[in-house]
Amino acid sequence: MLNQKPWIILLVTFCLALFLSQIVSSANNSLQQPIINGSREWEKIYLGLPNPENIRRHLRVYTEEPHMAGTPEDYQTAVYTRDRLREYGISAEIVEYQVLLPYPKENSLEMLRPTPYKAVLKEDTVIEDKDSFDTAVTPVFNAYSANGDVTGQLVYVNYGLPADYRRLAEMGVSVKGKIAIVRYGKAFRGVKAKVAEENGAIGLLIYSDPVDDGYGAGDVYPRGPYRSPSSVQRGSVLYTFLYAGDPLTPGIAAIKDAKRISPSEATTIPKIPVQPLSYRDATPLLEALGGPNVPRNWQGMLPFSYHIGPGPTEVRLKTSFDFQIRKIWDVIGEIKGATEPEKLVILGNHRDAWVYGAVDPNSGSSAMLEVARSLGELLKRGWKPSRTIIFGSWDAEEFGLIGSTEWVEENADRLSKNAVAYLNVDVAVNGTNFGVSGVPSLMAFAHGVMADVTDPKTGKSIFESWVSRQKAEKTTPVKVGDTDFQIGSLGSGSDYTPFLQHIGVPALDMGFNGPYGVYHSVYDSFYWMEKFGDPTFIYHATLAKIWGLMVMRLSSEALLPFDYSNYGRQAEKFVDSISKDAKEKELDLNLSELKKAASDFRQTTEQYQERLNRERLAANNLKIVNETLLRTERAFIDPQGLNQRSWYRHVVYAPGIYAGYEAEVFPALQEAIDSKNISQARLAASQAKSALERAKATLLFNANP
Amino acid sequence: MLNQKPWIILLVTFCLALFLSQIVSSANNSLQQPIINGSREWEKIYLGLPNPENIRRHLRVYTEEPHMAGTPEDYQTAVYTRDRLREYGISAEIVEYQVLLPYPKENSLEMLRPTPYKAVLKEDTVIEDKDSFDTAVTPVFNAYSANGDVTGQLVYVNYGLPADYRRLAEMGVSVKGKIAIVRYGKAFRGVKAKVAEENGAIGLLIYSDPVDDGYGAGDVYPRGPYRSPSSVQRGSVLYTFLYAGDPLTPGIAAIKDAKRISPSEATTIPKIPVQPLSYRDATPLLEALGGPNVPRNWQGMLPFSYHIGPGPTEVRLKTSFDFQIRKIWDVIGEIKGATEPEKLVILGNHRDAWVYGAVDPNSGSSAMLEVARSLGELLKRGWKPSRTIIFGSWDAEEFGLIGSTEWVEENADRLSKNAVAYLNVDVAVNGTNFGVSGVPSLMAFAHGVMADVTDPKTGKSIFESWVSRQKAEKTTPVKVGDTDFQIGSLGSGSDYTPFLQHIGVPALDMGFNGPYGVYHSVYDSFYWMEKFGDPTFIYHATLAKIWGLMVMRLSSEALLPFDYSNYGRQAEKFVDSISKDAKEKELDLNLSELKKAASDFRQTTEQYQERLNRERLAANNLKIVNETLLRTERAFIDPQGLNQRSWYRHVVYAPGIYAGYEAEVFPALQEAIDSKNISQARLAASQAKSALERAKATLLFNANP
Repeated sequence: MLNQKPWIILLVTFCLALFLSQIVSSANNSLQQPIINGSREWEKIYLGLPNPENIRRHLRVYTEEPHMAGTPEDYQTAVYTRDRLREYGISAEIVEYQVLLPYPKENSLEMLRPTPYKAVLKEDTVIEDKDSFDTAVTPVFNAYSANGDVTGQLVYVNYGLPADYRRLAEMGVSVKGKIAIVRYGKAFRGVKAKVAEENGAIGLLIYSDPVDDGYGAGDVYPRGPYRSPSSVQRGSVLYTFLYAGDPLTPGIAAIKDAKRISPSEATTIPKIPVQPLSYRDATPLLEALGGPNVPRNWQGMLPFSYHIGPGPTEVRLKTSFDFQIRKIWDVIGEIKGATEPEKLVILGNHRDAWVYGAVDPNSGSSAMLEVARSLGELLKRGWKPSRTIIFGSWDAEEFGLIGSTEWVEENADRLSKNAVAYLNVDVAVNGTNFGVSGVPSLMAFAHGVMADVTDPKTGKSIFESWVSRQKAEKTTPVKVGDTDFQIGSLGSGSDYTPFLQHIGVPALDMGFNGPYGVYHSVYDSFYWMEKFGDPTFIYHATLAKIWGLMVMRLSSEALLPFDYSNYGRQAEKFVDSISKDAKEKELDLNLSELKKAASDFRQTTEQYQERLNRERLAANNLKIVNETLLRTERAFIDPQGLNQRSWYRHVVYAPGIYAGYEAEVFPALQEAIDSKNISQARLAASQAKSALERAKATLLFNANP
Repeated sequence: MLNQKPWIILLVTFCLALFLSQIVSSANNSLQQPIINGSREWEKIYLGLPNPENIRRHLRVYTEEPHMAGTPEDYQTAVYTRDRLREYGISAEIVEYQVLLPYPKENSLEMLRPTPYKAVLKEDTVIEDKDSFDTAVTPVFNAYSANGDVTGQLVYVNYGLPADYRRLAEMGVSVKGKIAIVRYGKAFRGVKAKVAEENGAIGLLIYSDPVDDGYGAGDVYPRGPYRSPSSVQRGSVLYTFLYAGDPLTPGIAAIKDAKRISPSEATTIPKIPVQPLSYRDATPLLEALGGPNVPRNWQGMLPFSYHIGPGPTEVRLKTSFDFQIRKIWDVIGEIKGATEPEKLVILGNHRDAWVYGAVDPNSGSSAMLEVARSLGELLKRGWKPSRTIIFGSWDAEEFGLIGSTEWVEENADRLSKNAVAYLNVDVAVNGTNFGVSGVPSLMAFAHGVMADVTDPKTGKSIFESWVSRQKAEKTTPVKVGDTDFQIGSLGSGSDYTPFLQHIGVPALDMGFNGPYGVYHSVYDSFYWMEKFGDPTFIYHATLAKIWGLMVMRLSSEALLPFDYSNYGRQAEKFVDSISKDAKEKELDLNLSELKKAASDFRQTTEQYQERLNRERLAANNLKIVNETLLRTERAFIDPQGLNQRSWYRHVVYAPGIYAGYEAEVFPALQEAIDSKNISQARLAASQAKSALERAKATLLFNANP
């Protein structure tokens, strides 16, 4: 990676015309059009292949038993996945890692005062859903909670984010030496654990409030798709916003003999016990709280007026985990590329689930197998992708994006050099509304694929449905063209993180969303999917069409379908908005150089794209341009990494530390501004400026082919 | 009342200077200043007199027993009030009327399907509040509900307003032949009954949803001041927005031998049975409802996701009332004016309560007795008001503003000619935030009095506290001076209605507000007041100071403290806003003449006020100006009354028919526009224009002294 010097920037600006005239040719002998036409025929065939019934059968297999990462049942799903890929004519192997996976031994929660109550910590059986009767159902726990036995008064802290604790302090209440109870929502649960720990809480309870995730949203299971009173959101509280993957092998692959740090050295493991609760278990605890009434917007939907505490509610929380190093199993499939085999187009989905995971993640696993079968079918008929296609079936995503991260860390050099894009599907389907997030350079590409697939609901294209929905959601009537609707930004919460945010591989993440109220509970089951999610599995098949089409185009189009002009415009917008924010906060921070760099980058991307649009590339120049397009995203990687979390190296995108799942753009800069740390902000601004200059330089000079 | 011809308007415009120069004189021999100075001394004495302990004692007496209008216990409160007034040196009489007051015999509500449930229809006893144990507690009922025994499926219709039924129709659901269940709030309950009737419902249940009136607001009684699960809001469903008072004697006094219409002729009596419910009783009924989910903003705070129905919930509602003509008892007290005894300054409060009425209305009754005692004390020390002061202790307000309306109807001519202003206090205190509504001509007067009374909470003036609160509530920072904050508009819901809206007497309505969650329930008790409302009764005493000061100034200041320039500006604003509304609705309606009339009126009022501010009035002209000021409000009375409800004759102010308690300005015009009835809108616009021209002419010509 270049560490670009400023004078180079000035110099290279004058080279644009020269450079483009060198690689662009108006010769008729262009590879672009014929190949696309050829692809279009294959695409037509492909779109006829994905079959809902196959996907339904896969899902039934995947969800037959609870298959938490590292269990024998999880291993069985890996074998099933590998065998199906092989059956479809795709070479496939199980790749094993050894990672720290704490399993719960015995957790309990009791209210000691004012009235004794023992939390049930178990989800009700539901007569309609046979899977809810399985005695092997995973206990309700938060992975990586510390072991503990703590007794203390309870304090209610809303969503448990920094602003909530500040508000608490204004009311003169502290959680120091007390146990905090917060509701799920607004941020990743690991953030809640970290903030509780920082504020001196000795334990943390996280419950699902019905206003956010229960009857406030609609009818509860099994009458409706939403969270029922006994339902619990399991989940990891690993501080993955510091680094993702196995906590004992940051930055390196957790192979058998990897050099491991001790758990006490792992900064991503919480130091206090954390326990998730159903709203039924939370009710007696919260109802008994005294102290001041909550601020108006802290009130949830349990049938009483909420109080802050502390006490008189006093609880005893016991958590006990085995903290073992366990084997996990990724499955990696491969279709070798015909002409550029070293270049990699990767699609991936995790396979491990907290319990049955019919939605999360096995709707995606089942769809991915159908993509594999359909592409396998094309192979049999003679189709050959130019570039290599990799299937990743990741394990232990739920514990902390572990399977994908370890694989990316193990293959970092190769991926960094050759990965064209990573296409993630975690939840394929829990409703009928398509959603997609990704890097801005892939927006037009995503739009294009969406335009070529039919939405079963409307009969129009997925793109048209998506645009109508975006327009309907707009509160102010702004004049925008259909293609002006941006796809979302990538934060964290799924396996695109190591690809994009650790090594700079352009990524997309997508799925069909709807009224999903059984997240990480026992009720995320095959019955739920057949009753509420996708009874006919037609949306699963539609997702397989979109996903496969993306893979086909990325692996076979002569010119990589990247458009950086949108990246340029977005980056400039991000910088403008951050600079406005800094001005409002009245910080002594001059961002004019950063703004200039953003504006220059935007201009360069627009000129570059304009030429690409206007002129046909000569065959011998395609390779150079493709290499340039591939490397431009890599230019946003700073090898030094972000401040205080060097594993995250993408300067534009990273999960916000306090925002949790949410994307934060230019996160180091934004967080320095938020905490009014001027010197950090100056460093981050200069880091951002360099990244933009690198990206610009990458576009201007051809990278080594 | 003049029916002003257009050419007169043109003519009179030129007479303003002449007219003002005629009545205004710059002579030193002005009565204004000396009298005010004299008053200021008396005011100082007055402000030292109201005593919290006296008010507390009155409240204990008033709230000793339930005293619904027409009962022997109600009569006892009349005797107590009359005797106190006499004790304070104020002549007082009980004035009896005979009016239709239906008392409940036996009401019941049962759910027949899907699960049998018998509604309790009774409020829990509360150990801390002895009054909740009284076996004589008034049943929970809606006065003037029809008698009925209806069985039908239930349909949930949100707040039961026209827009809710339109939404229901969009969902393909009708209440025809069914029983509607709606929540309290947003509008007067009589409106809900009328709209249910119009939509073909055979019965109506009205319950208090906890999100509006229960734990959604805060802790419930007795832990906090808000509505508890068994608590029921009683109340009248008489269609008082058509005409107020006894339903059998519209427009005339209900004296013993009055000519009565039959109940079936009375348009204000609902034709379907209506029953109020606690949220505890409503829960099983609503929870069992099927059919579609409710629109998002129809969801309340009961712990399940709401459905529309119809059914499977099926209920049987039985209501039975005796519909007797009963005696009610106003108490009228009088302090004769020394120099203008025929001119009347009236203060009033109702005395009847649904149960104990510690807040509603007897906080006001107790404060009024302390105003009487304090003014009586001044009389003993030699103070003499110039004008006559009338105390009105109204009965049967809860049934439909009956006591006040009958008295106003009986004294209509005298009041129309001589009433200077009516100062209403219904609820004096249920918190610490002062609120006042009234005609715009009394705004500056109200501000002035508020500036001279201290807020016990802040030590600043009531005016300053009020302005700070208004500023804090403003979401957008608009540059306004302190005196720009408007007082509220008068809709309906208390006894100012017959005074202002039937005969055009300028009126104010005020009280201290707070976290009041026991409205019309058994818990509106002395215990509630001592625990939550005003433990030291200091706000009661403060209200007595404000109220008495207003009475003193209105009864003794040489120049009536009316400022019509604010009326002019407000009227013009109202017209502008209506005209904008009509334009947005794209109606074929030309309001330019009305706008011109409003603008002319505003200009006239500003010129008039400017002269009054600038020049001192000669003694012999004060009478003329005072008469003019008194009559200007009367000019807004149209003897023909509003469309389809001729009892309401004030062209600017009336309760909105579908808005219920809310004030509607230029109501006939606004409602015609809302229903897009062009011909009605044109008539109403011309009626409004004439009223504004009359008011202008009144200011320009001196009225007969």
